[in-house]
Amino acid sequence: MFRRVLIANRGEIAVRVIRACTEMGIESVAIYSTADKDSLHVQLATRSVCIGPPPAKDSYLNENAILQVAKSTRCEAIHPGYGFLSENADFADRCAEEGLVFIGPSGDAIRKMGDKAAARELMQKNGVPVVPGSEGSVTLEEGQKIADAIGYPVLIKAAAGGGGRGMRNVERPEDFASKFTEAQSETVANFGDDHMYVEKLIQNPHHIEFQVMADTKGHVVHFGERECSIQRKHQKLIEESPSHLLTPKVREAMGAAAVRAAKAAHYAGAGTIEFVMDDDLNYYFIEMNTRIQVEHPITEQVCGVDLVREQIRVASGLPLSYEQKDIHQKGWAIECRINAEDPMNGFRPSPGKTNFVHFPGGPGCRIDSLLYDGYTMNPFYDSLVVKIIASGNSRLEAIQRMRRMLEELVIDGYPTTAELCYLIMHHPAFVHGNYNTGFIESEYDTLLKWNRVGAGLDPIDIGDAKLSEGDRS
Amino acid sequence: MFRRVLIANRGEIAVRVIRACTEMGIESVAIYSTADKDSLHVQLATRSVCIGPPPAKDSYLNENAILQVAKSTRCEAIHPGYGFLSENADFADRCAEEGLVFIGPSGDAIRKMGDKAAARELMQKNGVPVVPGSEGSVTLEEGQKIADAIGYPVLIKAAAGGGGRGMRNVERPEDFASKFTEAQSETVANFGDDHMYVEKLIQNPHHIEFQVMADTKGHVVHFGERECSIQRKHQKLIEESPSHLLTPKVREAMGAAAVRAAKAAHYAGAGTIEFVMDDDLNYYFIEMNTRIQVEHPITEQVCGVDLVREQIRVASGLPLSYEQKDIHQKGWAIECRINAEDPMNGFRPSPGKTNFVHFPGGPGCRIDSLLYDGYTMNPFYDSLVVKIIASGNSRLEAIQRMRRMLEELVIDGYPTTAELCYLIMHHPAFVHGNYNTGFIESEYDTLLKWNRVGAGLDPIDIGDAKLSEGDRS
Repeated sequence: MFRRVLIANRGEIAVRVIRACTEMGIESVAIYSTADKDSLHVQLATRSVCIGPPPAKDSYLNENAILQVAKSTRCEAIHPGYGFLSENADFADRCAEEGLVFIGPSGDAIRKMGDKAAARELMQKNGVPVVPGSEGSVTLEEGQKIADAIGYPVLIKAAAGGGGRGMRNVERPEDFASKFTEAQSETVANFGDDHMYVEKLIQNPHHIEFQVMADTKGHVVHFGERECSIQRKHQKLIEESPSHLLTPKVREAMGAAAVRAAKAAHYAGAGTIEFVMDDDLNYYFIEMNTRIQVEHPITEQVCGVDLVREQIRVASGLPLSYEQKDIHQKGWAIECRINAEDPMNGFRPSPGKTNFVHFPGGPGCRIDSLLYDGYTMNPFYDSLVVKIIASGNSRLEAIQRMRRMLEELVIDGYPTTAELCYLIMHHPAFVHGNYNTGFIESEYDTLLKWNRVGAGLDPIDIGDAKLSEGDRS
Repeated sequence: MFRRVLIANRGEIAVRVIRACTEMGIESVAIYSTADKDSLHVQLATRSVCIGPPPAKDSYLNENAILQVAKSTRCEAIHPGYGFLSENADFADRCAEEGLVFIGPSGDAIRKMGDKAAARELMQKNGVPVVPGSEGSVTLEEGQKIADAIGYPVLIKAAAGGGGRGMRNVERPEDFASKFTEAQSETVANFGDDHMYVEKLIQNPHHIEFQVMADTKGHVVHFGERECSIQRKHQKLIEESPSHLLTPKVREAMGAAAVRAAKAAHYAGAGTIEFVMDDDLNYYFIEMNTRIQVEHPITEQVCGVDLVREQIRVASGLPLSYEQKDIHQKGWAIECRINAEDPMNGFRPSPGKTNFVHFPGGPGCRIDSLLYDGYTMNPFYDSLVVKIIASGNSRLEAIQRMRRMLEELVIDGYPTTAELCYLIMHHPAFVHGNYNTGFIESEYDTLLKWNRVGAGLDPIDIGDAKLSEGDRS
């Protein structure tokens, strides 16, 4: 096992990785930008090294500086977290060249899955259903032809993209050219790459993703699904596991497809196979994320596993701790992302000083956060401040617990998404599991109104779901 | 189900019960003393009513006032928590007379188990082993005769006692009279009762207790054991579940004895059957606690149940949610009690202002606490401020996690037992599970020395246990 690992990230995911290292008896080296000198990850690591100023390209994306710190502090491995360098194939290769273990898949595997057109082709070859669309990346003109052939609405996507950037829905042929150009320039700005592709838009689908984990011996397991349809502009806000939509048969088929996908890519480490699903439970591969996800805790809660620990173990060469038959989903978990954003004001980022913070506790509560009392958020990075994870024996119990947790949560200093999450936890469509990726857009005005008048929040009224309490025995 | 419940307690257990109520859609009415007006339980309850000044006899033990508040706020039930009125049979009877549900066993059952001599007799009749000793309560002279017959050392105990009060070890016949008198006056002062009994002292035994739960239909289940041998003067400090001492066969036999004990008492609600156990796994019933225990969370973590929710359910007349075959221990949980006491200064209570508090988070962490940033502890009540509960798939994982959690914990303002717990988590005897109720007394000086020199705390050195990380797969 490694004796010392560098964490090439910040925020809650750096804290998460440091915790796993500490519990494994591994020393952690944190890096931080000058803007992050008071950050929690800096305080929790065994040792911390300042790596440059914001923005990220001068610090968290500065490969040379990071590699140099890793070597001079005699780290044996680098954990990239999510975002930043986590899906950078060249960085993974450079680590290998420098004799450092990149805790994640090989550069080749990242490249294979990172190019969405190539990934799509690989999936098709391995019997994983994909959305009808272009084979490989396309020019504007080629894209237009394909869109005409598969029929509108279509989705234009960056081959290198992620998190909704470089992505546009196109409803009508006459909008194709402008949307394509828009998406492409966003792609170049964000990813330094101009490859685009086009696919059929599955309207308001469910976003269902499978967590996989592979060791370097070719063993692959999956840890079931996460339902991540509560999104705004392709940014997830609330996730749950399992999904009540999936039948055992569909779950098994999708899990097997996810494992086939990872095997086909000669994958190692943690990864996520993302699918869209229509109301008839037809599912289509959309992409693989070749890193740990923000929402990994709900899988950990439901399966009773530690995915970050497992990432570190397999990166060190150990075989998987689990065979597929050992992995069972038990109970239910829901995660709410508390972002320093003002949902009542177009989700404008709202960094500021945390005058007071108080987290919920008690049974079934998990808190993954970068906050402490008095901490001042800086404006340079993403706005996620707390992940609140509620677990229960049933979906109803998890919802009731999440409501309670959000009632206990206090963050004084700036607006957050906590109230919005609380309102969603009371929305009949959410409570009954009757929602898809169109939920926030279609219900935004209702939720906003609820927030203004304080209505819809009777803690006892949870519709039909209420009946199941008495029924449980 | 109840619509509104009064919580006749304070501190972390009041918070715990309020959380369960909120999650069940039940309104909670908190009571508080003037000293507790800024307490967390007051802020979390649906409604809070001041019930009088400290000390407890003028507020938390003021039965008339509590019953009046319960009726005037139209509560249907009263949850007594632990301590205060929780094991007061007359109060349970009065609730019933006033048409209020006492969330706990009947007055009769409390009386039956609260009189330790009667409980002992009941256990013997039902085939549960008891420590050799007096049958029924004794006078000083009778006690001396029995002590001579069973042989020294002996233990003098209050029939009505609990938590170490009214209890004395006697090593030599010549000390019997003075110790008996001492214990008896403590008993009168604490419990208003002078009944004493005498039993064989099992020296440095293991303290093993079984959690049981019974509904009003006569069904009884147990949720396995808790190992609570890390005690100081009969006050538990660290508990774990399961106990690595127990073989499956012994666990089954003890669980069956615990269920027989509860059935014999016509018990309803949550209860704990406490045993002492010698190194040869001989076990003897010592007493039944007829309430929820401080250390109930470790059982909740390991069995995946919510004991307080279950208490409320069975009190409302619902049948148990579980049959014995549904209950399985999975993984390991450890609880450390963080008390505002100075372990380096004779465990002197150290209440004060909480200048800053920061709790650990992430996977496998549960925090049950009354603290918030800026909260001033008052000196009138017990010194427990936080229960830190670590869960893991193995005992080793839980220990590693607890160390990590205690490293993250910050309480600035007064000394606590956190450092002592941290040192114990590194003590080879604890790490190897080689400890009994004599641990703190015998190791106190060593731990104190470690604390002074900061030695013994290499985060990687955990002796032989370390080897199992690589071996896990």
